[in-house]
Amino acid sequence: LFREAMSRLGAAVHVITTDGHAGKTGFTATAVCSVSDAPPTLLVCLNRGATSMPILRGNGVFCVNTLRAGDELIADTFAGRTKVAREARFDTGEWSKLSTGSPALMSAVIAFDCRVIEIKSVASHDIYFGIVEAIHLGGTGAALVYHDRAYKQV
Amino acid sequence: LFREAMSRLGAAVHVITTDGHAGKTGFTATAVCSVSDAPPTLLVCLNRGATSMPILRGNGVFCVNTLRAGDELIADTFAGRTKVAREARFDTGEWSKLSTGSPALMSAVIAFDCRVIEIKSVASHDIYFGIVEAIHLGGTGAALVYHDRAYKQV
Repeated sequence: LFREAMSRLGAAVHVITTDGHAGKTGFTATAVCSVSDAPPTLLVCLNRGATSMPILRGNGVFCVNTLRAGDELIADTFAGRTKVAREARFDTGEWSKLSTGSPALMSAVIAFDCRVIEIKSVASHDIYFGIVEAIHLGGTGAALVYHDRAYKQV
Repeated sequence: LFREAMSRLGAAVHVITTDGHAGKTGFTATAVCSVSDAPPTLLVCLNRGATSMPILRGNGVFCVNTLRAGDELIADTFAGRTKVAREARFDTGEWSKLSTGSPALMSAVIAFDCRVIEIKSVASHDIYFGIVEAIHLGGTGAALVYHDRAYKQV
């Protein structure tokens, strides 16, 4: 019932990336939330069992790339819903770097480049709190939203 | 820049309510996030300076009411954007109760009735983690989304 309920909650679609001494990875997520304006802070929830978890935790940096409408293929690729191998995920899309070295998607509506300041474990997940060190503002076109188990746009 | 960036992030619109010995209140928020399926857990971010903060903290329970398209007036009322006095906010909409006693909006797309299990302070905000004790599934109509400083629907 909780999953069904959550599926009715429309949410922006992000690809969270990280790069550093622990490795490079990226995954699709909707569990991202603004925390504070000053200092600019946001949070990302990640299952402790996820493949990307030790990499994100080890690097201590991440970039939240908020997808534009039209980047559904990137969303599916980083969600593991395509046949693209994990190491080849970044072959789709144009990636750059901002401040932390984490991959920033140039076509994203926004890319928030963050440094982890705290990690909180709750139930099955870790909540990563990040201070925003750099922002890339992409175009002002429509953003991708996931709602009712389908991609939509706003 | 962070505020401008966050405005481009489309998000569902919720009214968070609470009722109990510390009083009754409600406020509009987009900073809500799913945390875990098992147990069903979500989080809400609230500025520590908000009027509702001591009430929510005192009661230790809250209900996340995810608004449907068409309930913009309720969103504006609980955001303090109308002339409705704080104590008269619940005169708009049809309210009931689920498990915790917090007001549940019958027209909501979903109402998640929660008990606070942890509170984490980060920068200017408190993050309330709640276990979902009861869920009200409303109609399957369009949900309200706030994006680019405007109400939209998905």
